[in-house]
Amino acid sequence: MSTSESQEPTLSSEGSETKSKKASKKEAAKLEKQRRREVAAATSATSTLSVEDDPLAVNYGIVPLIELQSKTPANVNDWTRVEALNDSLENKQVLIRGRAQAIRPVGKKMAFLVIRENGFTVQCLVQAQPDLVSPQMVKFAAALSRESIVDVEGVVSIPAAPIKGATQQIEIQVRKLYCVSKAIPTLPINIEDAARSEVEIEKAIQAGEQLVRVNQDTRLNFRVLDLRTPANQGIFRIQSQVGNVFRQFLLAESFVEIHTPKLIAGSSEGGAAVFRLDYKGQPACLAQSPQLHKQMSICGDFGRVFEIGPVFRAEDSFTHRHLCEFTGLDVEMEIKKHYFEVMDVVDKLFVAMFDTLNTKCKKDLEAVANQYPFEPLKYLPNTLRLTYEEGIQMLKEVGVEIEPFGDLNTEAERKLGQLVLEKYGTEFYILHRYPLAVRPFYTMPCYDNPNYSNSFDVFIRGEEIISGAQRIHVPEFLEERAQACGIEVKTISAYIDSFRYGVPPHGGFGVGLERVVMLFCGLNNIRKTSLYPRDPLRIAP
Amino acid sequence: MSTSESQEPTLSSEGSETKSKKASKKEAAKLEKQRRREVAAATSATSTLSVEDDPLAVNYGIVPLIELQSKTPANVNDWTRVEALNDSLENKQVLIRGRAQAIRPVGKKMAFLVIRENGFTVQCLVQAQPDLVSPQMVKFAAALSRESIVDVEGVVSIPAAPIKGATQQIEIQVRKLYCVSKAIPTLPINIEDAARSEVEIEKAIQAGEQLVRVNQDTRLNFRVLDLRTPANQGIFRIQSQVGNVFRQFLLAESFVEIHTPKLIAGSSEGGAAVFRLDYKGQPACLAQSPQLHKQMSICGDFGRVFEIGPVFRAEDSFTHRHLCEFTGLDVEMEIKKHYFEVMDVVDKLFVAMFDTLNTKCKKDLEAVANQYPFEPLKYLPNTLRLTYEEGIQMLKEVGVEIEPFGDLNTEAERKLGQLVLEKYGTEFYILHRYPLAVRPFYTMPCYDNPNYSNSFDVFIRGEEIISGAQRIHVPEFLEERAQACGIEVKTISAYIDSFRYGVPPHGGFGVGLERVVMLFCGLNNIRKTSLYPRDPLRIAP
Repeated sequence: MSTSESQEPTLSSEGSETKSKKASKKEAAKLEKQRRREVAAATSATSTLSVEDDPLAVNYGIVPLIELQSKTPANVNDWTRVEALNDSLENKQVLIRGRAQAIRPVGKKMAFLVIRENGFTVQCLVQAQPDLVSPQMVKFAAALSRESIVDVEGVVSIPAAPIKGATQQIEIQVRKLYCVSKAIPTLPINIEDAARSEVEIEKAIQAGEQLVRVNQDTRLNFRVLDLRTPANQGIFRIQSQVGNVFRQFLLAESFVEIHTPKLIAGSSEGGAAVFRLDYKGQPACLAQSPQLHKQMSICGDFGRVFEIGPVFRAEDSFTHRHLCEFTGLDVEMEIKKHYFEVMDVVDKLFVAMFDTLNTKCKKDLEAVANQYPFEPLKYLPNTLRLTYEEGIQMLKEVGVEIEPFGDLNTEAERKLGQLVLEKYGTEFYILHRYPLAVRPFYTMPCYDNPNYSNSFDVFIRGEEIISGAQRIHVPEFLEERAQACGIEVKTISAYIDSFRYGVPPHGGFGVGLERVVMLFCGLNNIRKTSLYPRDPLRIAP
Repeated sequence: MSTSESQEPTLSSEGSETKSKKASKKEAAKLEKQRRREVAAATSATSTLSVEDDPLAVNYGIVPLIELQSKTPANVNDWTRVEALNDSLENKQVLIRGRAQAIRPVGKKMAFLVIRENGFTVQCLVQAQPDLVSPQMVKFAAALSRESIVDVEGVVSIPAAPIKGATQQIEIQVRKLYCVSKAIPTLPINIEDAARSEVEIEKAIQAGEQLVRVNQDTRLNFRVLDLRTPANQGIFRIQSQVGNVFRQFLLAESFVEIHTPKLIAGSSEGGAAVFRLDYKGQPACLAQSPQLHKQMSICGDFGRVFEIGPVFRAEDSFTHRHLCEFTGLDVEMEIKKHYFEVMDVVDKLFVAMFDTLNTKCKKDLEAVANQYPFEPLKYLPNTLRLTYEEGIQMLKEVGVEIEPFGDLNTEAERKLGQLVLEKYGTEFYILHRYPLAVRPFYTMPCYDNPNYSNSFDVFIRGEEIISGAQRIHVPEFLEERAQACGIEVKTISAYIDSFRYGVPPHGGFGVGLERVVMLFCGLNNIRKTSLYPRDPLRIAP
């Protein structure tokens, strides 16, 4: 059985070793020798001094691997989070773990470190003092490579002047400093460069200076470094929150979360390009959406379902808003009579989501805006609904002619977004009753005009973000429409047959998670909101 | 803009038609004619009477498609959920929508219907009465096909004797009855048969009776029917709750939800069989786990991450517990010093999950147990932890010899589960310090004996459910271990390089969602807990 609870928590690798009941003296001596060797090697580049000469050598150094191999259980509460460092801790001793973001030696007796943890930063001062901090320890600090992980133990002080270049307004007077993981000396991207806004770069140019601009491809090639910028930390914490609000809202409305297969026989909706593969000798493909299976789950009596999962599109789209793999937020629900019931869910869900993001993700949104400035999204408490006909009429009035039963192109969508913002003061609205011809085969035509359909798109900042509709639930009609759209009915027979066993009228919608985050934050490229994006040219890292 | 809020809510398709402002008289007449034609067709099999003769014909019938094409917005609150029907509604008029689960004519003047919605059932009585219910309406009710979706309007009454064969203890005296979606008359599976327990079937056999037993393959072939059984409704609502507790617990502990790509270059961990495909001319495969990318997200400074997503395994495993596609619950987190920190999360998370399931899913668990009887899971408030050595020692004591640096086979796992239950009174425990040789290359060896590793498996009812470990975070060591395990280092260079930019010690674990539900409910096959399972022989529906 575990002995973790019976062991003493320890503050440092050094302490843990001396306190460990199991560690023999011999082992300890061996370990100490190894540690000193490694510290000597690490400082040798800048010094000929041997740490053997330093009686305070136990206070710093590189933590040997053996110590990091779960040698000693730790009390995780011994560490203070950088985020939690504030003046209430004055004169208290604290232990933090984070990255050495910046290292500034000042002469030979002093070095400043900026330590970063999850986007929060604190300034630490390593200053030579008799019996506390040796000059060798200052040298060790100064020789640390940026982005290395360190444990810093020290006393909290409140500096006289405000600290620039760190988020926390306290300073740590360092007593102990251990390197837990060494970064290579020359990183392919400097976090400082990656975190710089265009505004700063432009300002520098005007001042005759040249600052490094890290391009998108370089960022994505070295994504694990790029992800460390405050903006990226913010983006993916916002993304996590979007998923959370989506789920919590729907669970509270009696929706059931489902997981449908991504490996399917035949193509999921026909039309668009799919990724094909061999499945144990059978031809198969990756689901382009959970459409068919989420509808089948309505046939299976779950009433209201949702899914969050990957969606695969093999299309050759090289735009700012298409990916070959993205995260779909999908909803399907019984309706009593009307597709407005689905739009009601969209309306309440997204208003709740925007409200939550604005209140709960303030710091993250600020971090994004610092690098990529944007105006907060304008939206109404009750989402505006326009028919497609009303939409194209608005465009017509400003001289943009749209084919009445065609679709809006990207340019027209943007223009309409602008007109809606001017007229109604919102950047989030629903456009419904789309022409049938531009919707998938399973879309229910309007009762009064079969050229239109019971469908809708939702727009944020002039870009489409959600697509939804009532579905055809009558199998004979569904077959007819599939044929009319050029789909081989036998490839989707299990789907169509599902409707022969009785099915309530139903509808639903799908949203791209990455698009929600991109457009809420006014970002210019969907690759910024995908952790490891996949596009026609990129399948790594 | 939407006019939904300005329109009157309507109770029935008939009502909605007459109230609709837009419907012209001509259209209404046409509609009524169509409806009568359809009703006549539906009842003609059993009758030569024409509904034209029935002055009460507006009270029943088949809802024409046009009415279901979002002709009239509905007030969804007009419908009462079957689950909500109780004696407080006595003498009140209610409208419900559900499936005609059972239809029992009693002579020509009376028919009983059992209506089911989301697993809840209510008895409805259609009885001929002058000026209210015509004999033709009784005939219409009696001719309904099972599993058809109907709208039933009527008055709630409290029967003198308890109602068998329905979950709700009230009866509805039917006034109006409309068929919203007709099921075909002969279903490939009867829900009654699919919902039957083995115990019932055995009892019947002993009584000389023969009841239909629906086998697994038939169930899966007609999954949308099979899903309608109370047990399956319960299973997937429990599954939804498992995912929810998993996320809520982790979000509260500062974890960030991430989404990693499923399309990757090279094989995700090497070893096991992968699904290969062509990615825009590049060889690619489906991720066998989010292992590498979740670790890279730790390198990217997210500190603590989790993911819920599909996992693909092309292995030819024909067991009760393997699928080719399942839902992975994955966690990765920084650790300060010890893999026990990861085990602490597992411990608290799963105890919280089991507690929540037992309190919040009582009805669902009952529904499962009614068809598939099981004993509630025995678990301790603080999860038992045994080392692998302790485990094989326990087995040795009862004569089961295990190779000390090998793995436990399924049989040994079951035996150990039994011994642990007898000795410690728990069916949920952690076995840690596994032999290094049986773990993936990225597993951190133990500090004191490189034949063991800082890893663990977790067991429920004698079956492995969770695998976790501390990871090797030193790139040179990781390379060495990958090579030793026969993995081509250059195929995972982006992963290994991630550790060159500084990374905190970390660990994590992975769980199969379907296994959690299967073992918590003591089910005998993982196909029961996958909505649309994928195994080497099945890729449909």
